[in-house]
Amino acid sequence: MDLPRIRSPRDIKNLDAEQLPVLAEVVRKTLIETLSKTGGHLGPNLGVVELTIALHRVFNTPEDKFLFDVSHQGYVHKMFTGRWDKIDSIRQYEGLNGFLLRTESEHDCYGAGHAGTALSAALGMAAARDLKGTDESIIAVAGDAAFTCGPTLEALNNIGETTRKLIVVLNDNEWSIDKNVGALATYFNQLVTNPTYAGIHQKAEQLVERFGGKLVQRFAKKVEEGAKNLLLPSVIFEEFGLRYYGPIDGHDINTLVHTFEFLKKQTEPVILHILTEKGRGYEPALENPGKFHGLGAYHVETGETESTATPTFSQVFARTVTDFAKKDKGIVAITAAMPGGTGLSVFKKEIPERYYDTGIAEEHAALFACGMATQGLKPFLTIYSTFMQRAYDMIIHDMAIQRLPVRLCMDRAGLSGDDGPTHHGLFDIAYLRPVPNLVHMQAKDEDEFVDMLWTMAQYNEGPIAIRYPRGTGTGARPKERPQIMEIGKGELVADGTDVALIGLGSMFEMAEEARAKLETMGYSVALVNPRWIKPMDTQLLEQVAEKVQVVCTFEDHVLHNGFGCAVMEHLSSTGVYTPVERIGWPDEFIEHGNVPALRQKHGLTADNAVSKVLKHLSAAVEAGA
Amino acid sequence: MDLPRIRSPRDIKNLDAEQLPVLAEVVRKTLIETLSKTGGHLGPNLGVVELTIALHRVFNTPEDKFLFDVSHQGYVHKMFTGRWDKIDSIRQYEGLNGFLLRTESEHDCYGAGHAGTALSAALGMAAARDLKGTDESIIAVAGDAAFTCGPTLEALNNIGETTRKLIVVLNDNEWSIDKNVGALATYFNQLVTNPTYAGIHQKAEQLVERFGGKLVQRFAKKVEEGAKNLLLPSVIFEEFGLRYYGPIDGHDINTLVHTFEFLKKQTEPVILHILTEKGRGYEPALENPGKFHGLGAYHVETGETESTATPTFSQVFARTVTDFAKKDKGIVAITAAMPGGTGLSVFKKEIPERYYDTGIAEEHAALFACGMATQGLKPFLTIYSTFMQRAYDMIIHDMAIQRLPVRLCMDRAGLSGDDGPTHHGLFDIAYLRPVPNLVHMQAKDEDEFVDMLWTMAQYNEGPIAIRYPRGTGTGARPKERPQIMEIGKGELVADGTDVALIGLGSMFEMAEEARAKLETMGYSVALVNPRWIKPMDTQLLEQVAEKVQVVCTFEDHVLHNGFGCAVMEHLSSTGVYTPVERIGWPDEFIEHGNVPALRQKHGLTADNAVSKVLKHLSAAVEAGA
Repeated sequence: MDLPRIRSPRDIKNLDAEQLPVLAEVVRKTLIETLSKTGGHLGPNLGVVELTIALHRVFNTPEDKFLFDVSHQGYVHKMFTGRWDKIDSIRQYEGLNGFLLRTESEHDCYGAGHAGTALSAALGMAAARDLKGTDESIIAVAGDAAFTCGPTLEALNNIGETTRKLIVVLNDNEWSIDKNVGALATYFNQLVTNPTYAGIHQKAEQLVERFGGKLVQRFAKKVEEGAKNLLLPSVIFEEFGLRYYGPIDGHDINTLVHTFEFLKKQTEPVILHILTEKGRGYEPALENPGKFHGLGAYHVETGETESTATPTFSQVFARTVTDFAKKDKGIVAITAAMPGGTGLSVFKKEIPERYYDTGIAEEHAALFACGMATQGLKPFLTIYSTFMQRAYDMIIHDMAIQRLPVRLCMDRAGLSGDDGPTHHGLFDIAYLRPVPNLVHMQAKDEDEFVDMLWTMAQYNEGPIAIRYPRGTGTGARPKERPQIMEIGKGELVADGTDVALIGLGSMFEMAEEARAKLETMGYSVALVNPRWIKPMDTQLLEQVAEKVQVVCTFEDHVLHNGFGCAVMEHLSSTGVYTPVERIGWPDEFIEHGNVPALRQKHGLTADNAVSKVLKHLSAAVEAGA
Repeated sequence: MDLPRIRSPRDIKNLDAEQLPVLAEVVRKTLIETLSKTGGHLGPNLGVVELTIALHRVFNTPEDKFLFDVSHQGYVHKMFTGRWDKIDSIRQYEGLNGFLLRTESEHDCYGAGHAGTALSAALGMAAARDLKGTDESIIAVAGDAAFTCGPTLEALNNIGETTRKLIVVLNDNEWSIDKNVGALATYFNQLVTNPTYAGIHQKAEQLVERFGGKLVQRFAKKVEEGAKNLLLPSVIFEEFGLRYYGPIDGHDINTLVHTFEFLKKQTEPVILHILTEKGRGYEPALENPGKFHGLGAYHVETGETESTATPTFSQVFARTVTDFAKKDKGIVAITAAMPGGTGLSVFKKEIPERYYDTGIAEEHAALFACGMATQGLKPFLTIYSTFMQRAYDMIIHDMAIQRLPVRLCMDRAGLSGDDGPTHHGLFDIAYLRPVPNLVHMQAKDEDEFVDMLWTMAQYNEGPIAIRYPRGTGTGARPKERPQIMEIGKGELVADGTDVALIGLGSMFEMAEEARAKLETMGYSVALVNPRWIKPMDTQLLEQVAEKVQVVCTFEDHVLHNGFGCAVMEHLSSTGVYTPVERIGWPDEFIEHGNVPALRQKHGLTADNAVSKVLKHLSAAVEAGA
């Protein structure tokens, strides 16, 4: 069957009903082939093909609003809203973003990258619509995992009192990925498997098909009666003030279309529970849904990806902490729904009794770690730098005020690359350095990283944080036995009298590179591996700064309130007026793309450091001349 | 009846049962009289007198753990754990803290000041206990409002899978304060008022009394059967994996004691729903529970408090925004359960249709505001500086990345005084300045404050934040008509050639005072009202800094990554090496107490500024000589 090109949602409305499954096939094929080159969130998008078709068949964006929670499942929506031709640029530098962006299309009414935001934002839009007295539909699509998330639950508590018109789609793929955690996940499963319920569900589906859009009033009444007498398992949502419908097959386009036509006319907030398969239509993704949630390039036929020989920081982290924990029964590992990304699946496998996955619940995870720390345990709370922002209040109010020794392990610190601004970990120095009683550090390579983890394991005076980047480091092999590091003691790697280069963590390499260039030019260059962001090695800093004409700092962080700013602050307050140049990210959100391209664009290069430094050196020569 | 002195929990266990109500009376009398002088959280503490007696009668702290959510209701617990004699020092400088503190007593296993942390931390302790194989009881006491809070709901989702032994006390005083918000509040009310349920509840209570502690097995079985067949309204907690008991009268000591003896032996997580009255036993507090939640000194007989003639910043804020909103239909006001504290009860009364109270749900509130802003509304999101920490991720991920014009109105910015470290708003400059696309400001007085609010109302380019302190300002009367302020344009109040003093917001007064002192000494002193933290008026800054021997900044914020740090950063990066001295809070958590005493202790005084400045001036003279 031939399909016209889909340039806008209107084209989907113009298709015959029997063309819709064909469209689904074409979309799947395109996604599987395209993402095999670009990488991306394949599994989630294969899961929502029919859902997205049905949404665009029934509703009219941009007047109606679709909010996709996390929005990593928005590729199909992008294809249907004028971006099909560009889908092969997804997550590429200067191409389409891997998430929805308000600046990318008028059909993207809300962007996201972190979980649990869709219901609240949708409720804000609904309240705005109610004030304005217009009638558009607002649909929030959220996965079952979003319901482990505080903001989603806070939103649920507010929906019933705030609006009479809002559609929440619970996209439940619990059956096809690593088990979601928590009581609500179990509860969703009950809804699906309860035999009494299954009967009602069939009946409801028939009703929707027979009366949908025609005898809505009558049907609504039946449902209302039904709800009170029969739909017992749905009571949680009903208690939250949302009328519950489902579960229905999320891959059955006709049922989805009829159901949305029905739901569109409801005058009370509703939640539609749909069942979908992550990776639907692609065997390798169905077999390994965890891997295919989001990944790099792969071979279409086999689903195989290239593996690197050097272990990533996440892998080194997980292996190390698991080994430490085998000898130290006090060590526990906590993740907020990221066993794969953080590498902690290793810990889970080898020491399951001391492994905790809280779901996407960073606030709870941080508090849970605090409770454990009060009892003498050593929690390694492992959360990406960008997601740690969710637990900021707990870091101040619970950990730091009470000096509880929680180990904050912040993966993906620095530029995250392809994922873009929602995922870059560029703020943690700024938000942690003002917090009293807190230690913060970053290692220059994997060997030092292991020493730091070992030091964290022994430290019990208060919260202690480590930031480490996505991907691999220099590949430096850890020593046989890790060493305790002295807190607040940096490393003077090389002394020098013209320039001092201070390269924090993963940026130490760039400082080394700049040093080599400057030495070639005949300058005497000190090189510092600062290690500690807080407490900073102020003695070492003053010592090197006093000797040289210019200091240059390197950090994978924003400059405002970053590491270099701390250096300036300290030198200024001690009256050392050596000029300080800084390499780091500017005061703007950095787009997605590969890291080298973005570093080049924004001046995070050894060459730029050299040219910044040289200005002061020639100035010095002139002044001296 | 004579009562022995209560020096420790053991003394409560040694009382005869009939002495317990007498103890309750004595505690109430002491609280009412003592707090009439010190101020404090009278209402909540009067509500938990019997609960606290029963807890200490049945359990043994410090082995058993009590976690009081927010912990403003911990005064009675303090009196029973060796601190009765010091209760008249509560919230006073160098006296007892108004919240629980781990450093204050071994009986305070967990401190708090923000809501929603108790369940998670308790679960962490329970998990630690389970790993260690010990058997102590862990009891989290949380008010009904804590259940509007994301972390509490995240914890609920994790309890069932994590431990088999945890007691949650839902201290429900919804019947006696301003209506709690959200679906769960309504739901709790159903539990209380459902007539079928009331019958069961009576029966359950009788059962507890008859069998409590004796025929526990039999009782448990009955309850189990009962739960499945009859206790329908309890299903939410049951679905979350907690066995539900209650509601019972939270002022009936005997029932509480018997119930806790029963619950202590359960091998599944339980939630006990108790009904209490805020302000119980004190007529003025019962009549005005909102006021008596927390207040300053009052007259014991009448409950009257002194009122000040000058309106507070909160009052000016609420009056102003309400007036603006009457003319601008786009303005909406959002509070997270603080209509009284933020002053927004005025907005609620006068424009109820555009007033939103989300409950203690800062994350949802921020996202809800974002959703509204996408639709062209002008949300004034009004949250204390310290509680805004809860919404930090939303400020970055939702507001700033998407440039959504949410107005962040941060009350209680700066030292909060009596409430202590959990309530000081000392971090907002540090955590907001690194965020791109965000504007941040502080006014020197009430008149400028109104101009800034007016400017915020007109600004639609992205998030815009204002910080303002607790209490009153200079008393400057706002102009008839507010003026739009130019963003990023500071005010050079006076020019000078020796010293430049830059006083941010409420600290401008101190800068003025320092200027007067320095001028008396014959120095020429520039005085700057910077207004904008971000974007900073860098031109003005350079202009004044270049002329003088020394700059001194004043801020009610920590120095690390604060306003003065931003000044140093800018001057350093533009090569202006005028020395910068700073007045602000050091890198430690500031204790509670009255603001002048704490400012004196930590050097936030005009005299200290003068002496810091003079060092550079004499140095300059010497160098020049």
